[in-house]
This record gives sequence, C-alpha cells and structure tokens, in this order.
Amino acid sequence: MKRRDFIRNTAIGATAVACSQTQTGSIAQSTKKVRWRLASSFPRSLDTLFGSSNVLAEQVKLMTNGNFQIKVHPAGELVPPFEVLDSVQQGSIQIAQSASYYFIGKNPALAFDSTVPFGMTSRQQSAWLHTGGGLELIHELFSDFNIINFPAGNTGAQMGGWFKKEVHSMQDMQGLRMRIPGMGGKAMARMGVAVQNIPGGEIYTSLERGAIDATEWVGPYDDEQLGLHEVAPFYYYPGWWEPGPSLSFFVNKDEWNRLPSDYKAVFKAACRVAEANMQARYDTQNPQALARILAKGIQLRPFAKDILDAAFTASQELLEEYSSKDKSFNKVFSAWKKAKEQSFTWFGTTEATYAGYAFSKK
Amino acid sequence: MKRRDFIRNTAIGATAVACSQTQTGSIAQSTKKVRWRLASSFPRSLDTLFGSSNVLAEQVKLMTNGNFQIKVHPAGELVPPFEVLDSVQQGSIQIAQSASYYFIGKNPALAFDSTVPFGMTSRQQSAWLHTGGGLELIHELFSDFNIINFPAGNTGAQMGGWFKKEVHSMQDMQGLRMRIPGMGGKAMARMGVAVQNIPGGEIYTSLERGAIDATEWVGPYDDEQLGLHEVAPFYYYPGWWEPGPSLSFFVNKDEWNRLPSDYKAVFKAACRVAEANMQARYDTQNPQALARILAKGIQLRPFAKDILDAAFTASQELLEEYSSKDKSFNKVFSAWKKAKEQSFTWFGTTEATYAGYAFSKK
Repeated sequence: MKRRDFIRNTAIGATAVACSQTQTGSIAQSTKKVRWRLASSFPRSLDTLFGSSNVLAEQVKLMTNGNFQIKVHPAGELVPPFEVLDSVQQGSIQIAQSASYYFIGKNPALAFDSTVPFGMTSRQQSAWLHTGGGLELIHELFSDFNIINFPAGNTGAQMGGWFKKEVHSMQDMQGLRMRIPGMGGKAMARMGVAVQNIPGGEIYTSLERGAIDATEWVGPYDDEQLGLHEVAPFYYYPGWWEPGPSLSFFVNKDEWNRLPSDYKAVFKAACRVAEANMQARYDTQNPQALARILAKGIQLRPFAKDILDAAFTASQELLEEYSSKDKSFNKVFSAWKKAKEQSFTWFGTTEATYAGYAFSKK
Repeated sequence: MKRRDFIRNTAIGATAVACSQTQTGSIAQSTKKVRWRLASSFPRSLDTLFGSSNVLAEQVKLMTNGNFQIKVHPAGELVPPFEVLDSVQQGSIQIAQSASYYFIGKNPALAFDSTVPFGMTSRQQSAWLHTGGGLELIHELFSDFNIINFPAGNTGAQMGGWFKKEVHSMQDMQGLRMRIPGMGGKAMARMGVAVQNIPGGEIYTSLERGAIDATEWVGPYDDEQLGLHEVAPFYYYPGWWEPGPSLSFFVNKDEWNRLPSDYKAVFKAACRVAEANMQARYDTQNPQALARILAKGIQLRPFAKDILDAAFTASQELLEEYSSKDKSFNKVFSAWKKAKEQSFTWFGTTEATYAGYAFSKK
C-alpha cells in the first residue's frame, strides 16, 4: 500500500471508527427516521390548547435534527375529535392530543387524568401526576387501550361562564338553560339546572337567540375569540367543575416501544415543554384578554355561596356514586383523594393567603 | 488492490458515508462531546432545590446518548456559593445554578429574575418570564456578565417562618430579632424588626439558644430537614417577601454559542423539565411535610392584617426607591409592574376564589 493510500484509508477508517465510537450501541438511535401523525381533538382556533401539539412537534424536530418528526392535524382533519383514542389504539395514527375526561364512557376513572368537579388546581394536578404517583395509576388505565399517556398542558382554573341575567342564589339556577357538558353538567343537573349539550360552534348563536340562558367555555382568552362577551353581559367565576383541567397526549404503545431510548427521552422532555408552555401562555393571555373584555363593560360576578355549597355537595355525591359502582374508579379516587386533602391543606396556608391579600392590592 | 481489501475499504467508506448522510450538516452536532462543570449555590441537603441541577444533567445526557454531559457540584465544592456568577462570567466553569436575587449588589434589577416582596406567584413568574417578555429583559441584564440565563425551578410561595412567641400585631414586631436576608430583610427593617443575617447552618442553634426570636427559611419540606419545628412552635404565613422565587441556570455565553443547535434545543428543554420538576416535587413534598409537622403539635398562624399592610407599604417604598435611583431597575420594574397588575386582576377572579372556597373544604 502506498503511503498516500494508507493515509487516505486510515482517515476513512478513523472517520468510521469515530462514528461508531461516539454512537456506541446507538447508531440506529441517533439517526433513525421516525414520522408520526398526530390527531388533535381541538380545532386550530383554540390556538393555545391546540398549540401545545405544535410545540411538541417543533421541540422533537429541533432536538433530533429533524430525524423524528410529528405532523400535527387539528380536530376532524384525520379523525373526528372524539375518535382519536380509538385511532391511536388501533394504530392508524401514532399519537393524539385530547382530554381524558372525554372518554369516561370507556372508563370513568380516566377523568382523574384531566379534572373532576372541585378537584385539583393546575399546579396540584401536575404535581400529583408527575411526582405524586398519579401518572402511574393513569398509565395502568390506558394500558387497556394499548396506549401510554403524557400530560400535554393545562388551562388553569376555568371561568364559570357567561350568563344573560344575574344569578343571585340557588333559586335563580332552577330551570336555567345552561350549556355545560361532562361531569360539571351532571352536577348542575342535580342542582336543578336544565343542562344543554351544544357543540362549541353553535354556542354563540344559541346564546344570542336565547335558546340558552348561560354557557361555559374556557376562560377570557378563548371566550373572547368566540365573542361570548357580545351576547351575555355577566361573567361568572369560579368554574368549579374545571379547576385545573390537564390535557393529554395518547401514544400507541407499539410505536412507543419501537422508539430508541434517546428519542423516548426527547419525546418526554418535549411533552414537558408543551405542558409548561400551555399554562404559561394562558397565564399571559388571560390577563390581557380579561382587561380587554372588562373595558367593554362586562360585569364580573362570583357565584353566591349557596350555589357553591350546592355544587360542592352534588359533586361529592357524584364522585362517591362512581366510586361505589366502579372498582377502577374507586382505586384511583382513593389515592387521588388522599393526595388532594393534604395538598388542599398546604395550599390553603401560604399560597391562598398570599393570593387573597396580594391580588386585591395593585 | 485485492478484492478482499476492496470490500473492506468500501465497507468502511460506506459506513463513513452513511454517517455523514444521515447527519447532513450535523456530524459535529449529533456526536460532539461536550463536558460542562456546574457549580450550585445550594447544598446537597436542599435536595429539591439543588436536585434540579441533577435533573438538568440527567436529561441532557439521556437526550444526547451521553455525548453532552454536565457534572454537578454542590455549593462550595468548586466555588463558594456566592461566587458562582463570577466564575461563569470568567469561564472557569461553564454553568451555575443559583438565585439571581443573590446578585442585586451587581445589578438590583436582577431581583426580578427570582422574586421581590409582594411580587408574582410561581405560575405568574413563570408565565412572565417565558411568554410575557420577562426573559428577554433579564437576558439583557445578564449580557453584561457574558451570561445567558435560564429558569431552573421555583419553590412556590414560601412560609413566613418560625417564631418562638406569637406576634399579634405590628407592636409585637418592634425589635423582634428575626433572621431574614435580602429585600425581605430590608422591608422588615423598615417595619421595626431587628433584622439578623445568619447562614443556614447556624439558624437552628441561634433559634434554640434564643439569640434570635424568629427565622424564615423555605417551606415545610426544607424547614423540617433543618429541624426548625423543634425549636419554635409557631409557623407563620405567608412569606410575602418570596411569593414565587424562581431559580436560575447561568451559562457562559461563549460556551453557549459553541453548542450545536440541537444541543441548544436539548439544553433548553432540559431546563424546562428541571424547572417544572422542582415545582412539582415541592408541591408533592410540602403537603406531606406539613402533615408531619402538624402532627407534632406545631401551630399555624397567618400574619395579622396590620402586619401585612405595613409590609406591603414598606415593600412598595423599597421598590420605588430602587426604581428612582437605578435606570436599569426602572426599565424592568415598569414592564414587570404592568404585567403583574393585569395578572393579579385575572388570578384574583377564578383561581383565588376557587382556592378560597375549595381549600377550606376537605
């Protein structure tokens, strides 16, 4: 071999060795092309909620130099909004973004992955899921669907919604036609409210025409986009049925198991970024939107104490009934309840007292 | 060339080509070895606070298959706790974990990166930094030190601390010997408190021997480890001087600029995981620690309203004084104040009302 060839071959060899050395046992991992399709249960117009899917996709792409990419589709583009769980389970899509409480028909305990009436706030829910044993319990539930779930963000405590007329006490709630789905709706029905189920796209018109007297949606930022302040003057709080709703990414377990370990780490971190970013965006956008809405003459109103008391009782009864009927619900409820009680005691001290004092000073 | 050599050389060549093809323009990025040393301002014993550095290191390592590694050192091992900023600036270490308010001697506006008396809560601070324009303003301040900063976590609202005797009103605060550093101490001094500066390691003994009448530290989980419940029976709240203190990672700018873009993305995501994880751990550990402390007969006490009122006035004066003296402080303060006022209005509605009602029900 000539000296020149020797050098060239050695150089090539060195490059090859360098490649394999620096990727020991992981050549396939760092360069594997992965392409996933994500179906969201949310429309593009809910840009903060839906946006956490874009954050996830962007983060994963950046961290893997484009080797792992997720194509994001809004509600209905690939799959109808409430069929995303089935589609991930069957493997026709790899990942979905949704809220687990949409699927309590499949297993009522899934509600604890998002929120229940008089449940945890955003920080409490996140703490319980990530470091309080919650996620392990929820993973067990999703195993039945060949799915592994990851928290995808939170809206924070939602508002109580828009009312055409003031409600001063429980008397005013009797027969009130209110659009409110889910467990909140079930609790409201027990309180005498005439609960209505209306899709998001029809709320504005229904309220404008007087087909309903009240509606809940999300909070100032999303509500403003729907224009609800134009058709109802009273904006009530708190939305006790959604004090800290957590969204979720559902991933097909076979797809998950096929990911190299560094992609798994990247994906998990990207979920955490998407999760934190959603709450931060809401916490920046809601104050600004509220200021705009108030400038238009909207009246803020807290629910009267007798309404909250009735709501609390109805909600407790509802959870206890599920628990007595369903073993799986009972298991998660028991663990959740213990964590919640301790958390409420702690958050009732310095956090709540600081908030109660400081937020009234400006 | 023999056929056998040809095959072998081609094979080597092919491997080399495969490496460069799958990492187009990014061979240096995906396989570059990066080794950083991190110095924390915190001791290992503050395991949740200090622990966010370990989370950062672990995440970065997992996501890069070990190519990017950060070696974590507790306070004093490489650098004294309050010299970490200088060391990062000089480049003798690449990264530090600290709290920006330790360095208000260098620039008082750095306080807004962590917390100020009657400032934002954890969620508000995180939202302001990440999506409210705060981080851009703080980045400008750190540019003077050749540093780029990243949020590293939050403790949540801290407690008001441990008192040997009850304090019923401002009268009882006069001449009270309390260990409280930083801006909280400055405000307390204006209120007539005999402010003491004592290192963490000497608090227990000072309180036990009666050299001080009261001390603040962090919250139930960290306070319990220091054993403060053994030497003072009254546990006050809220810690109005630290309503949502945010920790920081300081990175040397030259080292930052040398990182390939995917490592930058990985590092940023890892910071976000560390940040979220610290709050989640505190929010899980504090409730449990509080339950243990209460079981030992500790008495919880809220500060009287006249104490909070005096504290609020003293704190406002303090911030306004800094602002009138320092241009850089004034710039950040003005932006921060506007965001804070809108945020307080919003958080004062559904979040505070829900907390006020629900946390008292268990």
